[in-house]
Amino acid sequence: MIDRRSFFGLGALAAFAAGCNTVTSRSCRAAGRKVQFKFGMAGFSCHLMTVDETLAFMKKLDMHYLCIKDFHLPMKSTQAEIDAFKRKCADFDVTGYGVGPIYMGSDDECKRAFDYAKAIGVKTVVAVPFEKKEKKRMHSRARCEFLSGLCAKYDLRVAIHNHGPDIPDCYPTGESSFNMVKDLDPRMGLCLDIGHDYRAKANPADSVRRFHTRLFDMHVKNILLKPKYHAVPMPRGEMDLWEVVNALVDVGYAGCCSLEYESFPRKGSKPGIKEMDVAECVGYFKGLMKAAEG
Amino acid sequence: MIDRRSFFGLGALAAFAAGCNTVTSRSCRAAGRKVQFKFGMAGFSCHLMTVDETLAFMKKLDMHYLCIKDFHLPMKSTQAEIDAFKRKCADFDVTGYGVGPIYMGSDDECKRAFDYAKAIGVKTVVAVPFEKKEKKRMHSRARCEFLSGLCAKYDLRVAIHNHGPDIPDCYPTGESSFNMVKDLDPRMGLCLDIGHDYRAKANPADSVRRFHTRLFDMHVKNILLKPKYHAVPMPRGEMDLWEVVNALVDVGYAGCCSLEYESFPRKGSKPGIKEMDVAECVGYFKGLMKAAEG
Repeated sequence: MIDRRSFFGLGALAAFAAGCNTVTSRSCRAAGRKVQFKFGMAGFSCHLMTVDETLAFMKKLDMHYLCIKDFHLPMKSTQAEIDAFKRKCADFDVTGYGVGPIYMGSDDECKRAFDYAKAIGVKTVVAVPFEKKEKKRMHSRARCEFLSGLCAKYDLRVAIHNHGPDIPDCYPTGESSFNMVKDLDPRMGLCLDIGHDYRAKANPADSVRRFHTRLFDMHVKNILLKPKYHAVPMPRGEMDLWEVVNALVDVGYAGCCSLEYESFPRKGSKPGIKEMDVAECVGYFKGLMKAAEG
Repeated sequence: MIDRRSFFGLGALAAFAAGCNTVTSRSCRAAGRKVQFKFGMAGFSCHLMTVDETLAFMKKLDMHYLCIKDFHLPMKSTQAEIDAFKRKCADFDVTGYGVGPIYMGSDDECKRAFDYAKAIGVKTVVAVPFEKKEKKRMHSRARCEFLSGLCAKYDLRVAIHNHGPDIPDCYPTGESSFNMVKDLDPRMGLCLDIGHDYRAKANPADSVRRFHTRLFDMHVKNILLKPKYHAVPMPRGEMDLWEVVNALVDVGYAGCCSLEYESFPRKGSKPGIKEMDVAECVGYFKGLMKAAEG
């Protein structure tokens, strides 16, 4: 959201009255705004599907960008297997634009992830660099510094995926990721998971505006916090996704917003129930993207 | 959200009025806009489902308004059957807000439809009043005049459903419906089917603006005209639904926009394929409605 106090200075007001095209508010947005970001699918939305099912599902939904998870393309894949995977993606007009989230608990695991990304040919590694303390995953400055060096060496970007308040010392918010990377290689940045950001009491639209200089990827979703945190189809969640989309447009975000729909259908539930939820999310977010261009 | 009325000083308000609120463009819309219309389901979207399946489907999609088709509640239903149907709707938090489209080829069929609507307790009868000429259905001024009398007698509204150019003399466009009813009882109006309006080369957003004084119901959808006219999930159609939603908000439309998704899944296609399409449409339209409030 814009800061209306600074916005409604006299000069701004004059510009506003004159034609509304220099400033952006909820009531009056600049003419000719462009959505520069792409809408994609986080692999997890399709965690119950095979690769073929995932790609057919994405084709049906007219979705063309996939953040690849290891259950669809194992980390230990050979180059031939990777190439076969990529050909299959191309057949469905899908581009794997990134990999992850990948948990990296050692420098070796960092290197392995970078080799995997390089072999696939993606530019972005969604990462959770951690070290274990008393059996708990903790965020790790040392691991981030190591990754920062790898970014330079491989010319790849790291997008740290924030989780939520249940793991408070492992990137609970976008802010915590940002603070960890802001003085490292400029290729060290964020995959802002807005659901986890929100449940850690942050405002995801504000996070977009504050941290956009390091924003490389987004996990979009909607959630309810009661009775306990859970995924819901986008129109029925607590977050104002319209605010998030407008923040992304305002800062000129040009990466990907990937839908991560983290539901686990109950055993015995109707086939296709998760697909239907994902379809509803896809429709909703595309509606917001359409409207954002005015 | 801030209260913009109290927020703007008089000078600002004047400037705002000068620049923004007499016209609504894609780039600049008046503050504090409200979506007054409801989003519902046209019975045809669920033509392959039983009543129970339809209501469960609507509940899942958080949809609460149904335009009742005869395949869900036959015209010859007894009052006890109608009451049972209504109780079932109430169990799923669904309101049957109208009936139809009902084809009315005789004055008796008009009366039967009005009795059916009255017995259910809805206010709106979506209608295609016609007479047969050389085995073709033609729109009929005489039938409309008869219906106009019934509107007064029953205090019900008729919303004439336009079809498309393939039946050129049977209400191809919203304009043709409007011209037929504009001098009749004010309860004679339109159910504007935007897909049919569009394929008859009208602009549905313009139709909303021109005929809103008689606009009682809407069938919303999206379509492609090539290789031949067919329904597609809303984000992938030719029509600019964002323009339509904005036209509806601008004219203060307070009726229902009912999704009519007219696909017929191929035999042997995956179960749930139509449900997924409908879910995507529901999400998209809700996204536009959310955005329209700014």
